Amino acid sequence: MALQAFFKDYFPLIEAEMRACLPLPADALRVYYGMLHYHMGWSDEQFAPAHIKAGKRMRPMLCLLTCQAAGGVAQRALPAAAAIELLHNFSLIHDDIEDNSPTRRGRATVWTLWGVPQAINAGDGLFAIAHQALERLTQAGVEAARVLQVQVMFNRTCLELTHGQHLDIGFETRQSVTVAEYMTMIANKTAALIGASAAIGALVGDSERVDDYADFGRQLGLAFQIQDDILGIWGDEALTGKSASSDLATRKKTLPVLYGLERSERLRIVYAAPEMNVEAAVALLSEAGAREYAQAEAERHHSLALEALDRSGAGGEAGATLRELVASLLGRVA
Amino acid sequence: MALQAFFKDYFPLIEAEMRACLPLPADALRVYYGMLHYHMGWSDEQFAPAHIKAGKRMRPMLCLLTCQAAGGVAQRALPAAAAIELLHNFSLIHDDIEDNSPTRRGRATVWTLWGVPQAINAGDGLFAIAHQALERLTQAGVEAARVLQVQVMFNRTCLELTHGQHLDIGFETRQSVTVAEYMTMIANKTAALIGASAAIGALVGDSERVDDYADFGRQLGLAFQIQDDILGIWGDEALTGKSASSDLATRKKTLPVLYGLERSERLRIVYAAPEMNVEAAVALLSEAGAREYAQAEAERHHSLALEALDRSGAGGEAGATLRELVASLLGRVA
Repeated sequence: MALQAFFKDYFPLIEAEMRACLPLPADALRVYYGMLHYHMGWSDEQFAPAHIKAGKRMRPMLCLLTCQAAGGVAQRALPAAAAIELLHNFSLIHDDIEDNSPTRRGRATVWTLWGVPQAINAGDGLFAIAHQALERLTQAGVEAARVLQVQVMFNRTCLELTHGQHLDIGFETRQSVTVAEYMTMIANKTAALIGASAAIGALVGDSERVDDYADFGRQLGLAFQIQDDILGIWGDEALTGKSASSDLATRKKTLPVLYGLERSERLRIVYAAPEMNVEAAVALLSEAGAREYAQAEAERHHSLALEALDRSGAGGEAGATLRELVASLLGRVA
Repeated sequence: MALQAFFKDYFPLIEAEMRACLPLPADALRVYYGMLHYHMGWSDEQFAPAHIKAGKRMRPMLCLLTCQAAGGVAQRALPAAAAIELLHNFSLIHDDIEDNSPTRRGRATVWTLWGVPQAINAGDGLFAIAHQALERLTQAGVEAARVLQVQVMFNRTCLELTHGQHLDIGFETRQSVTVAEYMTMIANKTAALIGASAAIGALVGDSERVDDYADFGRQLGLAFQIQDDILGIWGDEALTGKSASSDLATRKKTLPVLYGLERSERLRIVYAAPEMNVEAAVALLSEAGAREYAQAEAERHHSLALEALDRSGAGGEAGATLRELVASLLGRVA
């Protein structure tokens, strides 16, 4: 309940903070900013105002909560929370081009509507705007030396995102990928930014246990991604909104798949066929114990996240809300 | 002569500063960093060391010179100079994809060698690394508040680059573009970063006339780009390394062309033909006075640059060297 109330209070503040960094001018740059408004879910493709649920805003919420749990005022971390969500969205614009994905959250992606050149460039713009969002920490009363520390963490995370994406793109054309390689990839592509969300909030909140918050976020990110991998194969179509076992149909190399391929010769044969028998693949994955393995791994990282959170000393109402957030993310079915 | 000596002294320092931000690891990220080393001219496509002249490094030189002309120590501005050159290079990786250019400086572009997805992502990485390069200003002894001012300027410039590129991509598919629209485009795409190079150097040098330095750099950038436009049509093939009037063959909308199209009905007809008669187009451009117009515009911005430099109070040996740099850029034939 505390979590719901926190979301309700802060969601509009996060949106407003992001909008403050993203004007929609009427001049020659209208299409440029219009593309970004569309991607953020704030407008339709004609740039008329819209309110489309474009993501859970989980990362900025985490940032605000760790700031408060560390004893700081959540509102002071708003510029950082906005920067993190803008960065996440920049990476989605480029990922959609790199993965050749025509849709995201049920809508056409930026590149399908405005073409690859404009989409690459708009993504670059959002990257720059994410950096600009951090500038507002100074106006929020965060001292210069602290802002620089936040930026060091932010920049390193940007780089890690690209490391992860580099590995992920490479996996597509490789015959075999090990579970260890996969874990390195998601540690960079997914967990790094969730770790930074927690750490940056704690940093703005003047925590002395920033490393513990970072570890908390990273472990949470790993658990979150593995959970996603499980839902991509065994999720309920009606709840996830994408067809069940869709990750199998596209031969996505996720944790359960890699675990199964390492162990089942028959699965390797099914996977090598030009037309994959998805039903057979699911059965073989289950037979190889891939679901149990992934579930156990998700739970292990979940526990490690909670241990790190305990070490961080996250307290008070925000500490409890953080634990509620962790539980809701792990218990999710979509 | 002073300019040559300055280049000779500082070129290796700039390269070393950039390399300090760009390791070449032996692990799973070797290809990732290898692509960036290749693009910077530091390696061949097998990632073996190479020394390929990849650009004039004009922007970082400008940054170091304005720092010194403002009374500062050039070496303190090295991290900013490196950041600017890295940013410029990031934008080239993405521009080459967006413009579908298979070669740059006589070599295959990153996307032709490693594919569009990896090239987009490598460009993003270089963008992040450019931001990391700025972090080293603190180690160079620049105080935190000043570093933040540099970043504000840097971030705004990143955004302006994407504004310019957005307009430029849009021009390609438009029937007509006005000279005024073109000037707005190059002010963002080219002049903004050259302006920032001068302004950031002055800022690190504790100048109180940063705006004059910015204006100097922007005017220089406009003159530089217009000069480029002239060389793209009337340049000497043997010196520019690209076929004369190549900008016409690709129907690039440069200043002389737009000026000519506004004034010559016959040129509009030649331009509308499926197979363009390049020789006829050159003759019509000359007849319309497009070359004289562009030359006069280049000279006008050149003069404005020198006036701004005078106002800035740029003095001493570095001031003289800056004037030499301006003269060399405007007198260039390639």
